[in-house]
Amino acid sequence: MTLTGAGVSPGAGHGPAYILTASVPEPPEDSAHTGDADAEKERALAALRQVAGELEARAARLDRPDDHASGGAGREGANILRAQALMATDPGLAVGVEALVDEGVAAPRAVFSAFAKYRDVLAGAGGYLAERVADLDDVRDRAIAVLTGHPLPGVPAEPAPPAEPGGAPRPYVLVARDLAPADTALLSRDVVAAFVTERGGPTSHTAILARAMGVPAVVGCAGATAIPPGTTVLVDGSSGEVRPDPPAEELARVAGVEGARRAALARAGESGATRDGHPVPLLANIGGPQDLDAALRHGAEGVGLYRTEFLFLGRRHAPAAEEQERAYRAALAAFPGRTVVVRALDAGADKPLAFLPPPGAEPNPALGERGLRLLRRFEDVLDAQLGALARAAASETAELQVMAPMVATAEEAAWFARACRARGLARAGVMVEVPAAALRAASLAAEVDFLSIGTNDLAQYAFAADRELGTLGDLQDPWQPALLDLVRLAAAGASETARPCGVCGEAAADPALACVLVGLGVTSLSMAAAALPAVRAGLGEHTLEQCREAAEAARSAAGPGEARAAARACLPALDRLGL
Amino acid sequence: MTLTGAGVSPGAGHGPAYILTASVPEPPEDSAHTGDADAEKERALAALRQVAGELEARAARLDRPDDHASGGAGREGANILRAQALMATDPGLAVGVEALVDEGVAAPRAVFSAFAKYRDVLAGAGGYLAERVADLDDVRDRAIAVLTGHPLPGVPAEPAPPAEPGGAPRPYVLVARDLAPADTALLSRDVVAAFVTERGGPTSHTAILARAMGVPAVVGCAGATAIPPGTTVLVDGSSGEVRPDPPAEELARVAGVEGARRAALARAGESGATRDGHPVPLLANIGGPQDLDAALRHGAEGVGLYRTEFLFLGRRHAPAAEEQERAYRAALAAFPGRTVVVRALDAGADKPLAFLPPPGAEPNPALGERGLRLLRRFEDVLDAQLGALARAAASETAELQVMAPMVATAEEAAWFARACRARGLARAGVMVEVPAAALRAASLAAEVDFLSIGTNDLAQYAFAADRELGTLGDLQDPWQPALLDLVRLAAAGASETARPCGVCGEAAADPALACVLVGLGVTSLSMAAAALPAVRAGLGEHTLEQCREAAEAARSAAGPGEARAAARACLPALDRLGL
Repeated sequence: MTLTGAGVSPGAGHGPAYILTASVPEPPEDSAHTGDADAEKERALAALRQVAGELEARAARLDRPDDHASGGAGREGANILRAQALMATDPGLAVGVEALVDEGVAAPRAVFSAFAKYRDVLAGAGGYLAERVADLDDVRDRAIAVLTGHPLPGVPAEPAPPAEPGGAPRPYVLVARDLAPADTALLSRDVVAAFVTERGGPTSHTAILARAMGVPAVVGCAGATAIPPGTTVLVDGSSGEVRPDPPAEELARVAGVEGARRAALARAGESGATRDGHPVPLLANIGGPQDLDAALRHGAEGVGLYRTEFLFLGRRHAPAAEEQERAYRAALAAFPGRTVVVRALDAGADKPLAFLPPPGAEPNPALGERGLRLLRRFEDVLDAQLGALARAAASETAELQVMAPMVATAEEAAWFARACRARGLARAGVMVEVPAAALRAASLAAEVDFLSIGTNDLAQYAFAADRELGTLGDLQDPWQPALLDLVRLAAAGASETARPCGVCGEAAADPALACVLVGLGVTSLSMAAAALPAVRAGLGEHTLEQCREAAEAARSAAGPGEARAAARACLPALDRLGL
Repeated sequence: MTLTGAGVSPGAGHGPAYILTASVPEPPEDSAHTGDADAEKERALAALRQVAGELEARAARLDRPDDHASGGAGREGANILRAQALMATDPGLAVGVEALVDEGVAAPRAVFSAFAKYRDVLAGAGGYLAERVADLDDVRDRAIAVLTGHPLPGVPAEPAPPAEPGGAPRPYVLVARDLAPADTALLSRDVVAAFVTERGGPTSHTAILARAMGVPAVVGCAGATAIPPGTTVLVDGSSGEVRPDPPAEELARVAGVEGARRAALARAGESGATRDGHPVPLLANIGGPQDLDAALRHGAEGVGLYRTEFLFLGRRHAPAAEEQERAYRAALAAFPGRTVVVRALDAGADKPLAFLPPPGAEPNPALGERGLRLLRRFEDVLDAQLGALARAAASETAELQVMAPMVATAEEAAWFARACRARGLARAGVMVEVPAAALRAASLAAEVDFLSIGTNDLAQYAFAADRELGTLGDLQDPWQPALLDLVRLAAAGASETARPCGVCGEAAADPALACVLVGLGVTSLSMAAAALPAVRAGLGEHTLEQCREAAEAARSAAGPGEARAAARACLPALDRLGL
């Protein structure tokens, strides 16, 4: 029986199943402390400090360069663990715990209840923040485990012993309801062959870390924890298939494909191009200077999407001009003579900022004042960012391009271009993530220098399907033919006005879809750095004409599954190479 | 100086300004009662009962047929007032008031605070419910006014005296920050020449009642209450212009146009058609049997959108099969031999139902599980509704068509068609209100018998602009060229598969846009009944070729303002006739 979930980190892996099912039980609702309230408070806060310290220590291990070499989660992992450590030592949380203990609540329950308040706020905020609830729960459970002596679910420290005497140790397939970044970030490919979780989506930390580590992963795989421990499991992180007890010949076939895949990755050239030499710059999406290392390591030809909001999130005021300038200059300096595309602050919706409040309550923040709509209300914030960008670019040889998020009309595009020109920024562009922008791409492109398609938001609006709702996952599938229609309209509109049109959404990271996007007329692709080698390899194995045929086949399909199959049938090297 | 707002009820009106500025002050926060709590409770509840009684009495007056003849708000108004009366006597509210009085709060403040809880819930629900906050506030203020003896703002009971001796009395232009339905519903065209409010949107009750009464109205008109009382004001309910002290020649011109407009309405034929005889059935949008009267009165050729959710809203369980059957049969019986299009229950988002909960918290309900997505989770609710529809249609000669809301893919369309066929319903269709549905219209249409475009939601998603956020009004303008692109795609897809494609959104109610929609290939138009005569007149004055030219001109424009102007330039009779 084969289980199916969402493949979120490509490649195939197999090994004995290691099932994580234990969890830290909720402390009883009526648990009271009987002793000294001050001592009980100190006990609770000490547990939180201990958890923060453990998380910091793990983060520090990830920062060591030799961990990168061993396939660990590197800086991406360290950042996530440091964010968790900050949660544990949040002063507001401490106040909440103390108040509860003062009311007589025992320390474990006080920790549980104080976290619940934050949990509700995060969950209610939806989107990116709601996905962080799992991280918060992990911090809470670690603190409760410290206080109650309950053992935490442990991850394997070493690979399984060889199946036969004299054989090689076998990395595990780690199966769980959900995985905490603190557990997975320190694992390596030597210990774990693949991740399978029952919960989580493509933007969960399990998915992000698995991609950073190059470990295949399938998330949202119902029933996975029912696999008996030790069963050999074959995991296809591309198709999302999870197969217990695969036949020997299937394992042999997968091993052959995996070898071919690694060979293809190794021989792919330095610049993105089709087999017949049509150049397609392959760029990296970054969230700040901390991601440059991975971008360079995976051979990015520049930055296609610098998400500057990570500089601003969680602050009471916009960061100072000098701090911004430093962060922007780091990216420009990392890619001398190349292109660096910076997106102006995309606040609002699932990324609310205290200093850029929307004008009123928003029943649907994703349909509210976000992106450029907010920047037009807070022109000083935009202008300060554009100024910092202009100063950073002045001393660097990289070509800076600046683009606006959430643009719907040509009027908005023209407004943003004027704001950029006023700061001496030569190249201004707009994101195409609202259906109206794709429909009217030529008129938007006429106002700016380039377009960049954000496929995630574009799918969200084109299908009226919240990208954060797992139950609507089928509608957010980037293989949906209607989404491909919009990509074609945007690329055609850009081409009509002789402007380049890139894609910087999740879609670009799928080697098959990357070929289809090129076939639809997209001129560059930007993605999470870890996806670059496979996309470069896949593109280099096919001609531009094959990409166009694949695009045509996908758009002629009735649904996303058929579209993917039809496109892959036009791109024969992908299956052969396990891409 | 000319003020501008949103024209929400067409036609021109003028008269002396009657400015309503008074409001009921908030009772002081610390106001306590000193006497007997039980007596104070009774005082509060008696005030609420008195308000409910007054509202019921006004509703009863509106039900009298002679009020229809005099241009009153009729059943539409009565329904709104009865809903308000229900608010006043809500048992939950009474419990809240009593609890507060028990804590020592004085009756007026207790009423104020008890309402505040409901107010927050409604406002937080967003959308349709949030717009009902104004009605709730009105009920609250009436009760507080009863308790404190504060006078309520009064509306004029009679027209202003003649300007010159021997002249005719002059109806007022009623200007206010916001108008309560209880005040406006009983007015007539003899007393009020136009409404102007500073607040409110196109779906506010002021707008709905003004259209029902045939009185021109402009809402969202900033600065209107600063007009000195008695100033002659000219109000254009089509363009949204409000002009104090207009020159005499302008008034004369408007009077001439108004005369031509009434003549055109009077001579328009019975069936919708272009001047050269291309038939375009003109249908009514209804919310239940109570709206059939107005539909027949305004010459609807059938029902184009029966919003069945009004049967379900505010209930703990779905209404019984017999009750549903009765409500559906009433509409079919009103239009023997004609078409009645019923939309299956469109719950979720701004119309949450207790018995159809979405599977989890939704950060953006408009992008969540609503419409058909929810019906697929609660198949029994859909099946009961389809069964009731089939039984209602069995004994009637009207052609019943049933359509699904919030359809995005051909797979969903096919699923719904199967559900209808299983109940013996011959004609099934889908709404086109998600951009993906418009892009893939041919594949959706192939699965069903007809398409119907909902322009409001389609604009909301195409521009990622919440239809309930006034600050994003420009993006929801139905004249946005990208929206017209989607209408054209939908109509072309339907035509490819020889299926009819109607429009049942607000856009159809604008005579110029109605011509453009026909030019884009739309085959029928459905709208609020009051808009039918003007649309019928406008369409009858132009040829199909003129409609096509207007559509082409609008789609070639850069923005909505230019699109409207370019289209109207192709439709010369509209300006001449004040349509």
